[in-house]
Amino acid sequence: GFAELLREWESLENEYQNTQETHQLYRQKLEEVSKLQESCVAAITRQRKRLKDMSPSIRKCKQTMTSEEANTMEEIQALIKERPNIFFEMEAFLPKKNGLYLRLVLGNVDITLLSKQSKFAYKDEYETFKLFITVILLLFAFTCQFLVSNRIVDVLFNFLLVWYYATLTIRESILISNGSRIKGWWVFHHYVSAVLSGVMLTWPNGKLYQMFRNQFLAYSFYQNFVHLLQYYYQSGCLYRLRALGERHNMDLTVAGFQSWMWRGLTFLLPFLFFGHFWQLYNGLCLFRMSQLPECTEWQVVMCGSSFLVLFMGNFFTTLTVVYHKFKK
Amino acid sequence: GFAELLREWESLENEYQNTQETHQLYRQKLEEVSKLQESCVAAITRQRKRLKDMSPSIRKCKQTMTSEEANTMEEIQALIKERPNIFFEMEAFLPKKNGLYLRLVLGNVDITLLSKQSKFAYKDEYETFKLFITVILLLFAFTCQFLVSNRIVDVLFNFLLVWYYATLTIRESILISNGSRIKGWWVFHHYVSAVLSGVMLTWPNGKLYQMFRNQFLAYSFYQNFVHLLQYYYQSGCLYRLRALGERHNMDLTVAGFQSWMWRGLTFLLPFLFFGHFWQLYNGLCLFRMSQLPECTEWQVVMCGSSFLVLFMGNFFTTLTVVYHKFKK
Ligand SMILES: CC(C)(COP(=O)(O)OP(=O)(O)OC[C@H]1O[C@@H](n2cnc3c(N)ncnc32)[C@H](O)[C@@H]1OP(=O)(O)O)[C@@H](O)C(=O)NCCC(=O)NCCS
Ligand SMILES: CC(C)(COP(=O)(O)OP(=O)(O)OC[C@H]1O[C@@H](n2cnc3c(N)ncnc32)[C@H](O)[C@@H]1OP(=O)(O)O)[C@@H](O)C(=O)NCCC(=O)NCCS
Repeated sequence: GFAELLREWESLENEYQNTQETHQLYRQKLEEVSKLQESCVAAITRQRKRLKDMSPSIRKCKQTMTSEEANTMEEIQALIKERPNIFFEMEAFLPKKNGLYLRLVLGNVDITLLSKQSKFAYKDEYETFKLFITVILLLFAFTCQFLVSNRIVDVLFNFLLVWYYATLTIRESILISNGSRIKGWWVFHHYVSAVLSGVMLTWPNGKLYQMFRNQFLAYSFYQNFVHLLQYYYQSGCLYRLRALGERHNMDLTVAGFQSWMWRGLTFLLPFLFFGHFWQLYNGLCLFRMSQLPECTEWQVVMCGSSFLVLFMGNFFTTLTVVYHKFKK
Repeated sequence: GFAELLREWESLENEYQNTQETHQLYRQKLEEVSKLQESCVAAITRQRKRLKDMSPSIRKCKQTMTSEEANTMEEIQALIKERPNIFFEMEAFLPKKNGLYLRLVLGNVDITLLSKQSKFAYKDEYETFKLFITVILLLFAFTCQFLVSNRIVDVLFNFLLVWYYATLTIRESILISNGSRIKGWWVFHHYVSAVLSGVMLTWPNGKLYQMFRNQFLAYSFYQNFVHLLQYYYQSGCLYRLRALGERHNMDLTVAGFQSWMWRGLTFLLPFLFFGHFWQLYNGLCLFRMSQLPECTEWQVVMCGSSFLVLFMGNFFTTLTVVYHKFKK
């Protein structure tokens, strides 16, 4: 009845007032937080500058020091050397101005992930996303190769590729501004791949297109298969490193991880290098095709160059990564 | 000398400790804020549910009430009616789960802008971005129309269009999840436009392409010209509404704004409608072309349908918007 409704309303109204108060408190704390953010950012910038100004004076002064003084200085210099890493980790929790690409695509929205868990969750999601699309691409390449030979389906396949690579560049930029150490080349490699797929999209159906089609589809199939292997290796790495409680700065106690990583890597590397040489082969084939008298399409040379760029970047970056891991 | 360096180092070390403490305090407050966020979100969800459960009981109960009781109920119902708006505004400052599109493109990164100023700044940036690209597109369309007639330049133009529309859909999704009231159609319209430009990209150069090329470029030129007008109208609206201190819930004291808006709108509308009918005309031309015996390209029908969809959506949405503004 009426009395009951009124009671319900009053309890609701009470709760509502509470909610309002919580919201007010929340917005107040939010402001405090953004003030603290600003002062942290300013302090770190100032510290960086002062440290940078100090180094040359130390070097100059060292020549006229007693050995005891020099010892003290060494200690100080060791501390100074560690600071950049500490600042890098502090900054992972502070908002940053977006880089040019994110500013163009997203505008100046803040995409900092403010806790370790959300960073991990975001990285996991990125890996799962890649896995998911990789499986779709595998099926797609298989379909185009063996089931339907239709230019419209090829177009859809290439559209998906363009979209996928564009998305990856966005997500990777977000990861980087949240403290991931992805090498710049892997991101750039996705820009090049997006351009390559975009050019494939505009390649009109004809004799030359049909000449290259099967090779391209087989290559795509292989590439996505390698991505599956890469996924298992990389998510294994992530999982084990988190279990160890740290991602960067590995030390000797993680010998178990190291040996797992090396086994994974030695399994993976032959497949990767085979893929790189396939890219080289694609590039060379396309350049040979461009010499044919019937070749009038600019797409041939354009795709060929992209493949060569991909080959060189992938091959040498992978070599560098492996070399650095080996030295550690 | 050494003593000086040591003093400098001590002062630096002091500042460093302070920075560390600020950062610690910051991360602690951050956690408090995220707890408050969660409890606000939970409280609003609960309130919504309880309000929803209450409405039918009120309706049922009303039939057996005295007139005094009924009056009280009316008052309560008036309060209940306002709540959704209040919750909507509260939620604009709380993180939300991203919608499907943003989840696909960005993943689950939080893109809530947490203050009125940053919301305004983001909207301004969005408008400036549109203005900037519109000017580039105008120049591009002009170049293609009168200066260089090269398929590669057309391809670049269409690539820019695809990228631009894709970017707009991302930014608009961000705006919407930050409390903007953009109609769903305007976002969808950018998806359709992106698809249209993507299909134009794959249209091989040939007789039919050349038949449609000039018409398409002229249309692009006109459309971007209208966008310029639209920019001046919409940024004028935004600017004036902010000066009034509120965006939604306009009331009678803003008669000055209303009259400005109507003058702007009556100036703009003829240009808009002319653009819509040009879209209809494009669609019809393409369908006529698809009847020609030499037409083998699927792109013709696809582009034609996109233009018809654009015409219908734009035309009817604009009519609805104007009608609603008029009723207010
Ligand atoms: C060589 C390779 C296996 C090394 O992987 P790794 O052991 O994870 O390398 P690192 O330790 O240098 O990783 C540093 C960071 O970059 C990320 N990363 C490394 N390679 C990446 C790639 N190709 N794409 C995206 N992210 C990558 C890692 O996840 C890690 O991220 P984090 O800092 O957020 O934890 C890997 O780079 C790779 O697979 N490259 C080959 C890609 C290729 O050639 N593809 C074409 C095949 S046909
Ligand atoms: C009709 C029109 C002028 C009305 O604009 P308006 O007065 O700003 O409309 P509303 O009051 O409904 O705006 C509500 C919100 O949607 C936004 N909005 C309206 N139309 C938009 C559009 N076409 N694109 C993006 N955002 C739009 C407004 O900026 C406002 O945002 P806010 O809530 O963040 O402040 C506008 O919708 C328009 O120009 N549409 C025609 C577009 C078109 O047909 N283009 C093709 C031409 S060839």
